[in-house]
Amino acid sequence: VSAVHVKRLALIGCGLMGGSFALALREKGLVDHISGYSASAATRAKALSLGIIDTACDSVAQAVEGADVVLLAVPVAATPDCLSAMRDALSDDALVMDVGSTKSDVVEAATQALGDRLPCFVPAHPIAGKEVAGIEHAETNLYQDRWLILTPTEATRGDLTQRAQTLWQALGSRVMQLTPQAHDAAFAAVSHLPHLMAFALVQSIAEQAQGDLYLSIAGPGFKDFSRIAASDPKVWRDILLANREQVLLQSQHMRASLDKLEAAMRADDATTLEKLITSASHTRSAWQASNG
Amino acid sequence: VSAVHVKRLALIGCGLMGGSFALALREKGLVDHISGYSASAATRAKALSLGIIDTACDSVAQAVEGADVVLLAVPVAATPDCLSAMRDALSDDALVMDVGSTKSDVVEAATQALGDRLPCFVPAHPIAGKEVAGIEHAETNLYQDRWLILTPTEATRGDLTQRAQTLWQALGSRVMQLTPQAHDAAFAAVSHLPHLMAFALVQSIAEQAQGDLYLSIAGPGFKDFSRIAASDPKVWRDILLANREQVLLQSQHMRASLDKLEAAMRADDATTLEKLITSASHTRSAWQASNG
Repeated sequence: VSAVHVKRLALIGCGLMGGSFALALREKGLVDHISGYSASAATRAKALSLGIIDTACDSVAQAVEGADVVLLAVPVAATPDCLSAMRDALSDDALVMDVGSTKSDVVEAATQALGDRLPCFVPAHPIAGKEVAGIEHAETNLYQDRWLILTPTEATRGDLTQRAQTLWQALGSRVMQLTPQAHDAAFAAVSHLPHLMAFALVQSIAEQAQGDLYLSIAGPGFKDFSRIAASDPKVWRDILLANREQVLLQSQHMRASLDKLEAAMRADDATTLEKLITSASHTRSAWQASNG
Repeated sequence: VSAVHVKRLALIGCGLMGGSFALALREKGLVDHISGYSASAATRAKALSLGIIDTACDSVAQAVEGADVVLLAVPVAATPDCLSAMRDALSDDALVMDVGSTKSDVVEAATQALGDRLPCFVPAHPIAGKEVAGIEHAETNLYQDRWLILTPTEATRGDLTQRAQTLWQALGSRVMQLTPQAHDAAFAAVSHLPHLMAFALVQSIAEQAQGDLYLSIAGPGFKDFSRIAASDPKVWRDILLANREQVLLQSQHMRASLDKLEAAMRADDATTLEKLITSASHTRSAWQASNG
């Protein structure tokens, strides 16, 4: 049995993310047994009937018992309680990972909840997802060719970080290691702040007397720019609160750039304005060439 | 000959927008003769060889002579000079339209340049375009099923506004009439400000020491949100300056919404934050249902 092979996977949270991880492991023949827990009995039954889990458990502790890998894939708000509930049932060498999109808050919760078991926790963030939630939308190749960020803490066991990396790479992910703080700053910049800006723009238009008229003639530029404003309000409420400090910091950076652009407009300074736009345009075009 | 039939079209500016208008009229059998002017002799020759214009003219005045419809489709900066150059050559009942994406500035330029011929000018803005410029990319159905905004001034002849509307409708456009001010406010809100925000975000990331790292893990949300940041710098420099007042006003509205969102984050006020996001999310989802 290689280091990448999972004898017993405990899936805490049987949804899109967890279900896709389980399916991918199965498809590659990398797992012997999967026990699953979800708060909802109906969800557990669905996971069982879809063949994604082998055993449905009605407690977190029962699910993690004997597991060598635990994947925590529950809504952010449920994370602390699930970590506390698994603490005393974890095997000595169990690898515990989450899939949350903010990391400093998860590390803080894990530090509180896991105590001296903290070294087994390797915080993980797969940059993958779908517009639809639920285990019925789980798919084998959700993580294929996508980034997977690991943010080990100072307490994290090196061998478990290594195992986490090997596992995700076996599923086709590109793995990068960052500190929790660097991770949160990066996603504040390229994901959380853009969401906040899209919410702000759409809300400011909707509040104006002529807002409906304005929206009625909006074109493809508005469509793409504002797509993320339609995101799930509860999910984004939680992300923005969890990563508040970094998002507010990135917003200050953005406002400083906006101030410069507007100052050039007010001064009718075409040269400076063109220079600023050109810098943004080149950056975005270069990004497209590498990542589009 | 019906009111919609064009005996002689003068195309001032042989590019993507003008060329597509000419092609659409030809395809529908709605034009007898097209004379074309472009500042570049090579562009005039190309328009001629592509069969889009019948006669290449080396001055604006020559092109508009005898024309019953004039379409001005040059870069914004060239608009005042072209209007001045056509003034004394225009036929009595000629309909003159432009295709610019800002309207108050064009009306001001036309008031200066056309003098007592101002009543023939019907400012027009087709909400259509492509990522590539140039007459070689012109296409017959560019304006089909797209909005066309007319912004007649108080001086504009009603019969010419009516003729403009009939013409664009014959090409398949949905025509709406707005005042130049309402037009500019609407596009500041749904187009110009989103561009400014996308420029500001991308620039603020690029300026940070870790900017390249942040961009390297950016996903589909960033991709869509920031697509318009790759827009042509000279074009957007001109638009932002031409519509400066309305863009700055819309930016104030957006900043007020952003302030509210950030205040809820700072106060850890999950209820208010969720309410604000929900309002934006519902507005954007409803927009998608009607316009997506």
